[in-house]
Amino acid sequence: MNLAIDAMGGDGGSAVVVQAIKNVHSTHPDIRFTVFGNQEELKDLTSFCTIVHTTQVMSMEEGPLAVRRKSDSSMIKAIESVKQDQCDGIVSCGSTAALLAASLLILRTFENLERPALTITFPTLKHTLCDMLDVGCNAENSSEQLMQFALMGHAYAKSVHNLEHPRIALLNIGSEAKKGDPVHKDAFEKIKALEHINFVGNIEGRDLLNGDVDVIITDGFSGNIALKTIEGTISAYSSLIKGVFKSSFVAKLCALILKTKLVDMKRYFDYRKYGGAILAGINRPVVKAHGSSDVEAFTNAILLLHRLVDIEVVDRMKELL
Amino acid sequence: MNLAIDAMGGDGGSAVVVQAIKNVHSTHPDIRFTVFGNQEELKDLTSFCTIVHTTQVMSMEEGPLAVRRKSDSSMIKAIESVKQDQCDGIVSCGSTAALLAASLLILRTFENLERPALTITFPTLKHTLCDMLDVGCNAENSSEQLMQFALMGHAYAKSVHNLEHPRIALLNIGSEAKKGDPVHKDAFEKIKALEHINFVGNIEGRDLLNGDVDVIITDGFSGNIALKTIEGTISAYSSLIKGVFKSSFVAKLCALILKTKLVDMKRYFDYRKYGGAILAGINRPVVKAHGSSDVEAFTNAILLLHRLVDIEVVDRMKELL
Repeated sequence: MNLAIDAMGGDGGSAVVVQAIKNVHSTHPDIRFTVFGNQEELKDLTSFCTIVHTTQVMSMEEGPLAVRRKSDSSMIKAIESVKQDQCDGIVSCGSTAALLAASLLILRTFENLERPALTITFPTLKHTLCDMLDVGCNAENSSEQLMQFALMGHAYAKSVHNLEHPRIALLNIGSEAKKGDPVHKDAFEKIKALEHINFVGNIEGRDLLNGDVDVIITDGFSGNIALKTIEGTISAYSSLIKGVFKSSFVAKLCALILKTKLVDMKRYFDYRKYGGAILAGINRPVVKAHGSSDVEAFTNAILLLHRLVDIEVVDRMKELL
Repeated sequence: MNLAIDAMGGDGGSAVVVQAIKNVHSTHPDIRFTVFGNQEELKDLTSFCTIVHTTQVMSMEEGPLAVRRKSDSSMIKAIESVKQDQCDGIVSCGSTAALLAASLLILRTFENLERPALTITFPTLKHTLCDMLDVGCNAENSSEQLMQFALMGHAYAKSVHNLEHPRIALLNIGSEAKKGDPVHKDAFEKIKALEHINFVGNIEGRDLLNGDVDVIITDGFSGNIALKTIEGTISAYSSLIKGVFKSSFVAKLCALILKTKLVDMKRYFDYRKYGGAILAGINRPVVKAHGSSDVEAFTNAILLLHRLVDIEVVDRMKELL
C-alpha cells in the first residue's frame, strides 16, 4: 500500500503533516508514503518516504479554478499520482473546493453517479457511529442526487462499518413524510422506493446525535449547516462548562477531581479522533482532513485512508451500488 | 390590553395554560385575557378572564387545511377575536402549520411582504440576544423573500431590542460572499444593496451562538435545521455532562457543590426563558409557544406577547420597513 500525502495547504503547515507521517510509520511500518510538497520542509521523511518536490501550494482560500492554474501544487501532483496508480489514495488538508474539483477532474466519479458527497462519521449518544452525506461538496442537490447519496451511504456503512442493514434517514424539517421543500419531498419518495435500502424516514436536526440511525442523507447546504452548528454548539457549551469550573476555588478543585472523566467527555465529540471526511463517489479513496488539523487529527486522517484502501472501499461500494 | 389565549392543543393540555395565566395575572393584574377552549377546563379563570367556549381542538398534527375544517377550534376563534379588534394579539402552543395558515388567511401579512417569518430569539455567549428568522414558516424561500426577512429582522431588532444598528448576517455554508446556492448568492447581493441595513455578510453554523451578530437571516429550511440542531446538540452534551456527574460518589458530591452554577448554565440556553417564537410580518402580534411548553414556558410566552403589544411592535415595524 502506497499512500499519497499532500503535505501543504493546512493551517498548521507541513510540520504537522511530517509528524503525523512519522507517527503512522512508527505503528504501521508496512505502509509506504509518497509525500508531495516543498522538499526542504520534508527532509525528515526522506529515510522512509518518497518525496515529490512541488513548487505551488493550494491555499485554503483557493476555489475550483485553481486546479488548472496550480498544476504544480502538492495537491494536484498527489491526485495525479493516484490517477496513475502509483498511489492507492490521497489525504489532504487543503481547500475542500480545490480538492473536490481536482478529484472530479482527474479521478472522476463512479459511473452513473452525478455528484460525489463529502461524508463525515460522528459518534452518537448510543456509542454507535453515524455517517452523514453530503456535508459540503454541493451547494444544492436534486432529489435524484439525494437518492444516489442514499445508495452510496448504504454501501459506505456496509463496507466501512460492517452494518448488515444500515438505517438510512433523510435530514428534513419534520419527521412526517410530507415535510420539506419539493426536492426533499420527492427525495423521500425516491429513497422509500429503493427496495434493498432500510429507509427509516425523515430525521430532524434535534435527533442527529441520538444514535437512532446509521446514515443521514442531506443536501450539501443543509448538511454543512447542520455539521457546523453541531461544532459551534459543542464549542459554546464547552465554554459555559469551563466557566462553571473556573467560578471558584472549590469549583477548580472539582474540575481537578473530575479531570479524567471531563477529558473523556470532551474527547467523545472531538473531530480529531475521526480524522477527516471522505469524498464518497470518487473513483479512488480521497480523505479531506480538517484545514486546522493538528498532528493527532492528521495522523487519524492517514489511518482512515489506510483503512479505506485496505478494505478496498471503492470496489466494495461499486459492487453494492 | 386584552390578550387572546388559545388554551388548547399543547402537549401539556389546558392545565398548563390555566396556571400560566394565573401566574401572569398575579404579577400583571392590569392585563385582560380572553381565553379560548373547553369552558369546563377553564372554570378556574372565570373570575378574571373572559372565557370563550369552543368545541374543537387544533391538534399538533394538523396541517394548514384544518383551518377551514376546524372553524370552531380555540385557535381559529382566538385569531378571529384579534382580527375583530376584540383582542390585541394571540399566543398559542398549537400546530405551527395551522397557526401560520390561519394567521395568513385571517390576519394577513404586511403589505408588500410575500411571506411571514417565524422569528426566535436566543442568548449568545457574549450575553446578547440574537434573532433568527425564518426558523420554520417556510419550506423554501426566494432571494427576494430573504431580502424582505433582512428588512423585517432589522425592524424587529430595532423595535424589540432597541438596537440602533443591528448587525444582520445571512446563514450560509461559507463566510465568503460567493458561497452557497444561487438563492443565497443572490440574497447576499440584494441584502448588501439595502443602504440602511448594517449587513455584516454570511455567517456559518459554527458561529451562530458567538454573539457577533444581532439578527440571522435564513430560509425556513436551513433555519429550522440549524435551530433544532442547536437544541439537539445541547441536549446531547447535557446528557454527557450528567453522566460525568453520576460516575462516582465523589462526582455526585461535586455536582452538589456546583449545583447552583450548573443550574444557571442549564438555564442559559433554556428555551422556556424566552417563551416562544413570533410570526413576524403578520398584521397583529402572534406568538407561537413551543408545543411541549410547561407552565414557565407558557408564562413567558404570554409575557412576550404582552411586551410586543405594549411596544406596538407591528406599527413600529411597519414604520421601519
